[in-house]
Amino acid sequence: MNGDAPYVLQATNAGVLTLTLNRGDKFNPLSEEMLDALQAALDEAKRDAEVRVVVLAAAGKAFCAGHDLKQMRAQPSEAYYKRLFNQCSKLMLTIQQMPQPVIARVQGIATAAGCQLVAMCDLAVAASDARFAVSGVNYGLFCATPSVALSRNVSRKQAMEMLLTGEFIDAQTARERGLVNRVAPAEQLDTEIAALCASILAKPAVAIAMGKQLFYKQIDMGISAAYQLAGQTMACNMMDEAALEGVQAFIEKREPGWKK
Amino acid sequence: MNGDAPYVLQATNAGVLTLTLNRGDKFNPLSEEMLDALQAALDEAKRDAEVRVVVLAAAGKAFCAGHDLKQMRAQPSEAYYKRLFNQCSKLMLTIQQMPQPVIARVQGIATAAGCQLVAMCDLAVAASDARFAVSGVNYGLFCATPSVALSRNVSRKQAMEMLLTGEFIDAQTARERGLVNRVAPAEQLDTEIAALCASILAKPAVAIAMGKQLFYKQIDMGISAAYQLAGQTMACNMMDEAALEGVQAFIEKREPGWKK
Amino acid sequence: MNGDAPYVLQATNAGVLTLTLNRGDKFNPLSEEMLDALQAALDEAKRDAEVRVVVLAAAGKAFCAGHDLKQMRAQPSEAYYKRLFNQCSKLMLTIQQMPQPVIARVQGIATAAGCQLVAMCDLAVAASDARFAVSGVNYGLFCATPSVALSRNVSRKQAMEMLLTGEFIDAQTARERGLVNRVAPAEQLDTEIAALCASILAKPAVAIAMGKQLFYKQIDMGISAAYQLAGQTMACNMMDEAALEGVQAFIEKREPGWKK
Repeated sequence: MNGDAPYVLQATNAGVLTLTLNRGDKFNPLSEEMLDALQAALDEAKRDAEVRVVVLAAAGKAFCAGHDLKQMRAQPSEAYYKRLFNQCSKLMLTIQQMPQPVIARVQGIATAAGCQLVAMCDLAVAASDARFAVSGVNYGLFCATPSVALSRNVSRKQAMEMLLTGEFIDAQTARERGLVNRVAPAEQLDTEIAALCASILAKPAVAIAMGKQLFYKQIDMGISAAYQLAGQTMACNMMDEAALEGVQAFIEKREPGWKK
Repeated sequence: MNGDAPYVLQATNAGVLTLTLNRGDKFNPLSEEMLDALQAALDEAKRDAEVRVVVLAAAGKAFCAGHDLKQMRAQPSEAYYKRLFNQCSKLMLTIQQMPQPVIARVQGIATAAGCQLVAMCDLAVAASDARFAVSGVNYGLFCATPSVALSRNVSRKQAMEMLLTGEFIDAQTARERGLVNRVAPAEQLDTEIAALCASILAKPAVAIAMGKQLFYKQIDMGISAAYQLAGQTMACNMMDEAALEGVQAFIEKREPGWKK
Repeated sequence: MNGDAPYVLQATNAGVLTLTLNRGDKFNPLSEEMLDALQAALDEAKRDAEVRVVVLAAAGKAFCAGHDLKQMRAQPSEAYYKRLFNQCSKLMLTIQQMPQPVIARVQGIATAAGCQLVAMCDLAVAASDARFAVSGVNYGLFCATPSVALSRNVSRKQAMEMLLTGEFIDAQTARERGLVNRVAPAEQLDTEIAALCASILAKPAVAIAMGKQLFYKQIDMGISAAYQLAGQTMACNMMDEAALEGVQAFIEKREPGWKK
């Protein structure tokens, strides 16, 4: 593949922005350049009212094999690594903090920070043959930052086994444990993702944005504070025109005006 | 159904208080009146030493379809909605904070705040054909307060999928994910609930009350603080006459005196 | 069994320290003496660089039936019970805080604080016929301290059902819910554990130690703080010689020098 090709491809279709990691020949490593490109694309998307859903996809046989180890190894400095992991963590938090839902589209392998990417997305759909691992420990580097995301998706003993052994789990296991939402044969992956996108597109953007932000805030709070914040959010959401129309339409047993 | 009928029916049988949402013809919406009636019933129950277990049931084909949208829509004021959601959250927290275990008995659908009710109960038993959704987003109102409860029952990607799509999950899926404990054919629902009640009735009220309170407190704490509190609770529990007798009976391989 | 026999047997084999609870005739109760012996063994192990993995096993038909109720009942004083539960909680936290992974090897029953021991280990492998319960409530003593561990392994409704009813779950259910990692026929239990140990032994100790410590710290934090700490840990880990060599070996498609 041409080294000058964009790191991240962008395609928009009726409110769905598909971002494609574009170093498929190398299993889409999260090099500095890739992190920069993905951060820029997400920063642009999060301010773009036309974008209602983001699909995070990857070119080639694999979703993402994690950090670019060659690039990392070439700069053995703790300060460099701190900056790199900060950059990467910022990207991961951007996915969670942006107003639109982000859906991971996973084929092949998703390892280390690649598995973390899947874990940080709001939803994930995997091809039947996809496999997941936090395999840094295999070369002496415990997947610490991926563990933050993984331990918030699957139970702690399941996470610990993956982190300590570096072993793969298959797509079906990932679904049962909560790391991905749906598994589909490779040829039906896009159909499954399109169904999720269509479902989200049929809802008002403001409700989705308020709800997503609330969801991740409240989950880190004690339950009383969580309810306090959620009640305020819901009252605010209810005053939105789309909700007032949606509830009115529900009462009148008709489609809301905002639904095409 | 007569509009003057009580919103919540009460029946007591040998320590089990069954509260039945009594607007089955309307799928038991959580109107202000229903919330008031349920709050009053729970407030009375929590102080009543005769009540050892509460079963939260519902009349008609459905458990509960969430808030009363018609009533809500008629008062489009943010202050009103804040009061309403505060009232509802207070009810939800009462379930968790009262000394007796509360068991949801679910048939038909449990949607939005109805699904939240199930999530907030200590235990839940569902009929095989029961279905669960947080469907507010379908009419433009993200289920923010239900998300507080749901995200503390099921994994976050599973919760997000339900919240973003508004789609139903069936009883079996709800059981696998942790939203309900047991699933039974409709005609065996009461047998299953009776078995859980009998098991709880066979234990001393003070141990159950101390334990339930500790459980929800410690789960919101860091693990060291959680152990500190749990150790104090358990020492206090052990000094109770019922525990001293229960442990003595265990040593002597006989039934404790408090067991009939 | 001889009352003078050591409470905990120790055996070391190529980096794997097996600690065996040695009161099998009594189902290995966590008496003061057993807690002392296990604490001493873990305190020694955690400072011993030769020890890379700890297997926590038990002699006889059962893993552990929890506290020594006879000993407890003989000293009905709240101050005594507080000291006892503090001692026990300290032991439980030691398992989590020590640098080496601890794997529970479970046969027969693991009840009350015995179930808690399993829940606190990093990994757990159970024989097919193993069973788990937090059964203190059966004799009037709610398993408060075990609930701290259990509720951090399985979903809250599943935990509450076990705590309120005192009923057993089987090994397969424990695996599905996240309380144990693997289930094997009794005669293959050691093979399964050896495989996990071999996998961990093949990784550098420093990566495992940093990673384990980070894992339990970050899981009690909000996600932003968790990422901050994880990034620092990973940068520090990457500067370790083993990681630099491991990553270099990965790039050169060869085995790292530290792998035999």
